[in-house]
Amino acid sequence: MTTPKPFEHIALIAKPDATPRLVDTLTRALAFLHRRAVRVSLSEQSAELLSREDGLPLDTLSGQCDLAIVIGGDGTLLNSARELVDAGIPLLGINLGRLGFLVDISPELMCDMLDAIFNGDYEQEERMLLRCSVGKQTPQLALNDVVLHKWNIARMIEFETWISGGFIDTQRSDGLIVSTPTGSTAYALSGGGPLLSPGLDAIALVPICPHTLSNRPIVVNGHSEILLRVCGKTEPEHVRVTCDGQAILSVASGEDIHIRRHHNSLRLLHPAGHDHFQILRAKLGWGESPS
Amino acid sequence: MTTPKPFEHIALIAKPDATPRLVDTLTRALAFLHRRAVRVSLSEQSAELLSREDGLPLDTLSGQCDLAIVIGGDGTLLNSARELVDAGIPLLGINLGRLGFLVDISPELMCDMLDAIFNGDYEQEERMLLRCSVGKQTPQLALNDVVLHKWNIARMIEFETWISGGFIDTQRSDGLIVSTPTGSTAYALSGGGPLLSPGLDAIALVPICPHTLSNRPIVVNGHSEILLRVCGKTEPEHVRVTCDGQAILSVASGEDIHIRRHHNSLRLLHPAGHDHFQILRAKLGWGESPS
Amino acid sequence: MTTPKPFEHIALIAKPDATPRLVDTLTRALAFLHRRAVRVSLSEQSAELLSREDGLPLDTLSGQCDLAIVIGGDGTLLNSARELVDAGIPLLGINLGRLGFLVDISPELMCDMLDAIFNGDYEQEERMLLRCSVGKQTPQLALNDVVLHKWNIARMIEFETWISGGFIDTQRSDGLIVSTPTGSTAYALSGGGPLLSPGLDAIALVPICPHTLSNRPIVVNGHSEILLRVCGKTEPEHVRVTCDGQAILSVASGEDIHIRRHHNSLRLLHPAGHDHFQILRAKLGWGESPS
Amino acid sequence: MTTPKPFEHIALIAKPDATPRLVDTLTRALAFLHRRAVRVSLSEQSAELLSREDGLPLDTLSGQCDLAIVIGGDGTLLNSARELVDAGIPLLGINLGRLGFLVDISPELMCDMLDAIFNGDYEQEERMLLRCSVGKQTPQLALNDVVLHKWNIARMIEFETWISGGFIDTQRSDGLIVSTPTGSTAYALSGGGPLLSPGLDAIALVPICPHTLSNRPIVVNGHSEILLRVCGKTEPEHVRVTCDGQAILSVASGEDIHIRRHHNSLRLLHPAGHDHFQILRAKLGWGESPS
Repeated sequence: MTTPKPFEHIALIAKPDATPRLVDTLTRALAFLHRRAVRVSLSEQSAELLSREDGLPLDTLSGQCDLAIVIGGDGTLLNSARELVDAGIPLLGINLGRLGFLVDISPELMCDMLDAIFNGDYEQEERMLLRCSVGKQTPQLALNDVVLHKWNIARMIEFETWISGGFIDTQRSDGLIVSTPTGSTAYALSGGGPLLSPGLDAIALVPICPHTLSNRPIVVNGHSEILLRVCGKTEPEHVRVTCDGQAILSVASGEDIHIRRHHNSLRLLHPAGHDHFQILRAKLGWGESPS
Repeated sequence: MTTPKPFEHIALIAKPDATPRLVDTLTRALAFLHRRAVRVSLSEQSAELLSREDGLPLDTLSGQCDLAIVIGGDGTLLNSARELVDAGIPLLGINLGRLGFLVDISPELMCDMLDAIFNGDYEQEERMLLRCSVGKQTPQLALNDVVLHKWNIARMIEFETWISGGFIDTQRSDGLIVSTPTGSTAYALSGGGPLLSPGLDAIALVPICPHTLSNRPIVVNGHSEILLRVCGKTEPEHVRVTCDGQAILSVASGEDIHIRRHHNSLRLLHPAGHDHFQILRAKLGWGESPS
Repeated sequence: MTTPKPFEHIALIAKPDATPRLVDTLTRALAFLHRRAVRVSLSEQSAELLSREDGLPLDTLSGQCDLAIVIGGDGTLLNSARELVDAGIPLLGINLGRLGFLVDISPELMCDMLDAIFNGDYEQEERMLLRCSVGKQTPQLALNDVVLHKWNIARMIEFETWISGGFIDTQRSDGLIVSTPTGSTAYALSGGGPLLSPGLDAIALVPICPHTLSNRPIVVNGHSEILLRVCGKTEPEHVRVTCDGQAILSVASGEDIHIRRHHNSLRLLHPAGHDHFQILRAKLGWGESPS
Repeated sequence: MTTPKPFEHIALIAKPDATPRLVDTLTRALAFLHRRAVRVSLSEQSAELLSREDGLPLDTLSGQCDLAIVIGGDGTLLNSARELVDAGIPLLGINLGRLGFLVDISPELMCDMLDAIFNGDYEQEERMLLRCSVGKQTPQLALNDVVLHKWNIARMIEFETWISGGFIDTQRSDGLIVSTPTGSTAYALSGGGPLLSPGLDAIALVPICPHTLSNRPIVVNGHSEILLRVCGKTEPEHVRVTCDGQAILSVASGEDIHIRRHHNSLRLLHPAGHDHFQILRAKLGWGESPS
């Protein structure tokens, strides 16, 4: 990679969960940044954890900073990613003790890793997001997945799937997971979906408990336009659409669900030598090399 | 089988769905029974479909009749089974055009089949039911399955499973399907469970989209006592327990879910020569014999 | 699509299986081509079926013709594809009664379809192939899949997987299916792999009965270089590598298996209006549109 | 359990694999048994590991001893079980560092555990075996599974399955795993089969990579008679039948494969407090109790 511009103004974002470990990690991160003499702005939750009152909302941070350090779990990073992606600033994830696919720096190694990263010794990758729109509701982004699922009902739902104008099928199931490569290690994996390479320009459609046993996961081009339409005896009030399991959209009668790749990608920073499959091996218990 | 007592008083139960095909089938069934000169009592829905006012509730029917003929789909039979099992009267299922695992007589062959059955030429099998109790709510029966599932929430739920006093695991998933052999061709199959022989004295526990990929379906002895306990960060209002997808139980804080085999079994009648696996082959598209 | 050059010299290739239906279809195809006044060359097997002696081997045909019509099943087309891909001539598949994913024109509609296609009314798609090399053996191509599997042994085999120089895992299993999008509807699907859109630039790695339950299918970029290395207690004589289930490579001690995308793609012709997912729905019994 | 007769004559059986750890464990076991003043007979392999010449074949041991201590992995125990089951003597398994489902006593705790067991403080369970016969070959036993699989061929095989005289289906696949509850944690699990409770009177039939996606695992009564018949285009020389992955049977033209429960069960001893699901949790990485 070409020599990047040094980071000058850092957003410090933390999980809203006041554990001593989080406060300690946040405090050490702040001290480190002061030693490096860069400007720091805190998110509202970071400020609160440090009993300060100068926290800023994420959309203000995104206009000022050129790097966001996110301390928490994958959930915290997912939320930050959706808020910051359009500002184009890269994210760096510090986990709180349990290795995540997205937050891959441990608190113990944090200062050494940050030192290296500030010296330009890091890797950057681009992760695609999905954009989901339903009726006149504000479209929502998702770094992991957009999920159509049954809601407040015991029975399966019925819906049609269309890809870029072509009819795929009418399905009865508990729902459908539309997943990015990033999301392929999350809920889509529990639903029986394949693992996708992080940089693959592809979207996976994973049916949840389909009535027809041959309704298998499908992987389509990342630029496909996906349309889901509730049909049959399923009432729209018995479905919901969830983005990253965090933002929820309802569906009104006659409204289709449109999902496509968001035009901006997330820039995710990792320490040099980052290895996606090493994390997979560690988290999934895969066999290590015998040599 | 030993010569059975002839059927003398028949309950005629129909799906609450006034299609011409259903009304026609019901009318023909009634005419047949009159020709056979047996007593007939109608369920409330059957009477309504025939514009009669002498319909009786299922619990009244169950005290009078010695055979119930159920016209509809598997759903209608599931409901009747739960209502009639404790009265000990056998059930016979007429489907409405789409072959069901439980309703295996077609309207076209109905009169011939009924003739044979009234002449004693039939097969009878016993199907186990499950009984689920939660707190002080009325325990519910299930011929197919008792399902613990997430409710009104996008995230996975967390719960412990205990079998006959032994701890099995703590699981994060969308829920758990506790299925009889009868239910193993229904929702449990969509969830990835195995097919169980109809008469097997066994219960299948099938996790729904488990977070841990090695959480596989488990088949236990039919007399096991199963206890499910919501735990971790899952609030009881975010789970429900459903019996056959029809009866819904809620769970209050501190309440466990108890599931065990019901002490009575359902007697299900079939035409002579009934073949469970032939129905499976037809419905699942399995390979037929080449010879 | 821009107006293509008309087809002038046709290769007629048939399955080596002398059924009356095949001979009849071949005879009608030949008559049609004569009516269209194009040159025709026969494959050795086509000639034999017609009791003629002017059949030519596939590599001679590939140097002369500008279109190959393949009559048979998917297996016949797979074999022709590997032989003809480097000559760059397109293939068109006529099935013999059972719809295939690759041979999608029925004998009944053959002449009408061919008429349209000769008039320029068709669709063309490109399908990637894989190229597998082991030691000094002639590298083999595959339109569906390259499969590493145990051979002549009851126990699982052990091997390492590397993708573009990065270590993935050491796996104990019955083998690994490395599949193109075309192959994703074939053996890889039986092994639990996802369906890939036909044009996706991706390769699926599907483990066969892996010992570690979290060894799930992986989908990687189509330009990945895949290396498989037998290891642990597995002797090389207990593995084989198969291309499209037709060409078999053995592995000697110390030899790695190299798999990557072949530099040429197959051009596959279809009647106008061809719909891949319609074939999937028909073959897999998926739900049709209710409207 | 009622007070059992004390053990007086012990068979000491070891894995044929001369590691220092095995020799040490064997030596300590022998010293322990001498301290307890019971008679000990060594298997041929145990004797060889200790450089002694008084080893006896398993069938001689089985006529003399009233307990067999097996030191090794699950494979060693599987082999001993098949040899000793008909003599009715119980087995006790010592693992060599990696916990097994069948060999559940670690070398470190061996002497304490053996002390308790010799004092009558243990649990005994019965495990069913399968018996497979093909033509005039000597029938073989299996504690885990009888597997029909393709052999020396890349293509799928085709066969019919019959259960107790009833036709199940004609299947194209890589084979079929017929598994006991004991085997449900072994190869059958890799093939997608369910976990069966160890004492369940049931047999699982798990298809290996079936062509028809709805060919799902089936669990049948433990007293079913299973018949497999190679058919279609599959030549008998392209299949083999394997018992516990150790004994191999070939199939001649016109020969059926008969599998049923063996009339004797294996008696397996465990330390008091043995918990099958605790081993499952440890080996499969399931969630532990949070409390």
